[in-house]
Amino acid sequence: MANQTPQTLKGFRDFLPTEKRHRDWIERTIAEVFERYGFAPIETPTLEYASLLTGKYGDEADKLVYTFKDRGDREVGLRYDQTVPTARVLANHQHELPKYFRRYQIQNVFRADKPQKGRYREFKQCDIDLFGSTAPVADAEIIACAYSAYKAIGFTEVAIQVNDRAVLVGTLSSFATTEVSVSSIITTIDKLDKISQEDAIQELVAKGLTQKNAKLAIAAISSAKPSPNLENIIQMTESLGVPSSAINFNPQIARGLDYYTGMIFEVTIPGYTAGSVGGGGRYDNLIEDLSGLSMPAVGMAFGFDRTADAALEMGLIAPSENQTQVLVALIDESTIKDSLKVAQQLREQGYAVEVYPALDKLGKQFKYADEQGIWYVVLLGEEEQKKGVVTVKDMKTGDQTEAANSDLVITISDGFGVSVR
Amino acid sequence: MANQTPQTLKGFRDFLPTEKRHRDWIERTIAEVFERYGFAPIETPTLEYASLLTGKYGDEADKLVYTFKDRGDREVGLRYDQTVPTARVLANHQHELPKYFRRYQIQNVFRADKPQKGRYREFKQCDIDLFGSTAPVADAEIIACAYSAYKAIGFTEVAIQVNDRAVLVGTLSSFATTEVSVSSIITTIDKLDKISQEDAIQELVAKGLTQKNAKLAIAAISSAKPSPNLENIIQMTESLGVPSSAINFNPQIARGLDYYTGMIFEVTIPGYTAGSVGGGGRYDNLIEDLSGLSMPAVGMAFGFDRTADAALEMGLIAPSENQTQVLVALIDESTIKDSLKVAQQLREQGYAVEVYPALDKLGKQFKYADEQGIWYVVLLGEEEQKKGVVTVKDMKTGDQTEAANSDLVITISDGFGVSVR
Repeated sequence: MANQTPQTLKGFRDFLPTEKRHRDWIERTIAEVFERYGFAPIETPTLEYASLLTGKYGDEADKLVYTFKDRGDREVGLRYDQTVPTARVLANHQHELPKYFRRYQIQNVFRADKPQKGRYREFKQCDIDLFGSTAPVADAEIIACAYSAYKAIGFTEVAIQVNDRAVLVGTLSSFATTEVSVSSIITTIDKLDKISQEDAIQELVAKGLTQKNAKLAIAAISSAKPSPNLENIIQMTESLGVPSSAINFNPQIARGLDYYTGMIFEVTIPGYTAGSVGGGGRYDNLIEDLSGLSMPAVGMAFGFDRTADAALEMGLIAPSENQTQVLVALIDESTIKDSLKVAQQLREQGYAVEVYPALDKLGKQFKYADEQGIWYVVLLGEEEQKKGVVTVKDMKTGDQTEAANSDLVITISDGFGVSVR
Repeated sequence: MANQTPQTLKGFRDFLPTEKRHRDWIERTIAEVFERYGFAPIETPTLEYASLLTGKYGDEADKLVYTFKDRGDREVGLRYDQTVPTARVLANHQHELPKYFRRYQIQNVFRADKPQKGRYREFKQCDIDLFGSTAPVADAEIIACAYSAYKAIGFTEVAIQVNDRAVLVGTLSSFATTEVSVSSIITTIDKLDKISQEDAIQELVAKGLTQKNAKLAIAAISSAKPSPNLENIIQMTESLGVPSSAINFNPQIARGLDYYTGMIFEVTIPGYTAGSVGGGGRYDNLIEDLSGLSMPAVGMAFGFDRTADAALEMGLIAPSENQTQVLVALIDESTIKDSLKVAQQLREQGYAVEVYPALDKLGKQFKYADEQGIWYVVLLGEEEQKKGVVTVKDMKTGDQTEAANSDLVITISDGFGVSVR
């Protein structure tokens, strides 16, 4: 491997500590919010029968499912999304699950897609869904939970755009023809955040609408009013803590997927331009289509990679308490054990501590601490041992302080600055 | 799917909320300890080039690797363990990683093995390793970290048995013959916790030792003394907080795998009889064998499933604060919004709160709370709205308390018992 070290496969990624910590922190932060909203975690296998995974979202999707024959000659496949396995769980475990099942699921999925910037073959999905309720309060809970999760990461502004399939269908169905379905018109309308009105009109005309009707359709959707259902949902999200400035009706968003049946929404972070960081909506028929089990549902998916990227771009990073804060240097054989006791004392106080695992020159140990961004080096050599103290070196300022060895307490305030008693 | 719902593949598992929460809690608890010991997380892809995964641990292991041709006709395989991908990461990212790299990794691995009780085709591995140091203090850090992690889960007793490959080889090599290698003798000795001395003697004789030498070999290993290296490591673990009663020299453990080169250890939970819950040791040549990169290493693997089982068996379960604690009932249309505000207030205080997503009869809502093990139901109907209060029902005692709606604070003490101001 040294001479011809294999790399990762294209579209797959290693996460080294800095990035992994950032992602873990995002995941943990989001999951904690989910739990505050009553969502419960589930996990499904990475491998499923291929028959479960294919034939669900059309031929194009089927081509992207990783399938193969296992050693028992079964056609199996890698998890393609989290909705299909969840539909299976709902069907298999119907009687063990709450009537109103709020589940969250954070696992990797696999797509045999062309890798390109921001598109991977293995990536994390992060879904919340509320099953079993058709009430608008369920829609509002999903939106409020999403809003809280983005806020918990630290985004100062979170922008939610909502719409209702009923608004799209109600406004646009009169423009549909035998040739051009309302779905097809909606598909074009959905692009209005990326293409100009002129281009949208062109596209509708190419699909078969008259120039006049294409213009009228776009004018109609631009001035559409929210449905009473949507107004109700928006008001409830406000009661649930979403400021009215953060949630806006946008009659032009359609969220692509055909399976939505009611409210749909999209979340963006103002200032982050790579696209929406999440979205979802109500899909009351999909679970039945997938599993035969009649089950209304409303949910949302976090764009995990984009959310992590956006956080990084805005300087929102994990609190550093998980990284090594203190390096206990080793000076000589005779003081190792006392040094280890100091390390242990600090760990019991909750600090992240490394013991330098070699009797290298002190300069080398300081250099290591510096390179690793470790804040403090604690040393206990023969001199310190005689005096019953330790020396604490602040790697940022270079200051050295002596502290009583017994009952050592290091208080790290404001990230930096040490008070030792 | 309703009529012929596919199940999970044999050897694969769904984790529903109760079990998933238990496992998440174990994982989080262990990971927090790892970080206190300075270990940093990495993540590697689920799929790798098959050439990376095979030819590493022998033909038997190769048969257990899930391999297949992807759509680009590449031979790929599912992660079989975490050591081989980590060796690749060490080789690929050598210059980005610390000289003394403490990494932890918690991911699922895949084995096309015969499923049986306690053996799965997809299961979680949980490894810590310290790369780059040959110092015994590194061995001691691994053992101390493992001990702390089991203690953090709440096990009152944790038993660590340690040995040194040098003890095994030093004691047993004089019994090796051209016919019977010392490795082969060690393999039999390793079984002494499961088979009787007589059976072990039989096995050694069957392998080709004389009856006399078989007996002598077992007697010799039974009375072997720890190596100076091992004594040193044991003493250092004590400085690192492992009580001397918890760590014992056992010259008979060998940890099967040939790749260990020094200290080896095994962790059991007294009272849990299904086997060891973890183990590891020093392996200074393996990373070079795997990747060509010369890199001493010492580490350990948690038996995740067994650790989770043992915890459950001993009544150690996740603190319940992640489960829904409060159900906000919905009484009628006119009080929904005020009810939602109450839900939001409680969430802001950190409680896990569900809003009941339907205007069902109150009895049905209480029943739901009861079935889900939710502690409190908060209601705000027209009467409460007039009085500016909410009613809080303690589902355990049945007691109902009224509390001022504005500035609602519910204090949940000792798990149950509510004080409302």
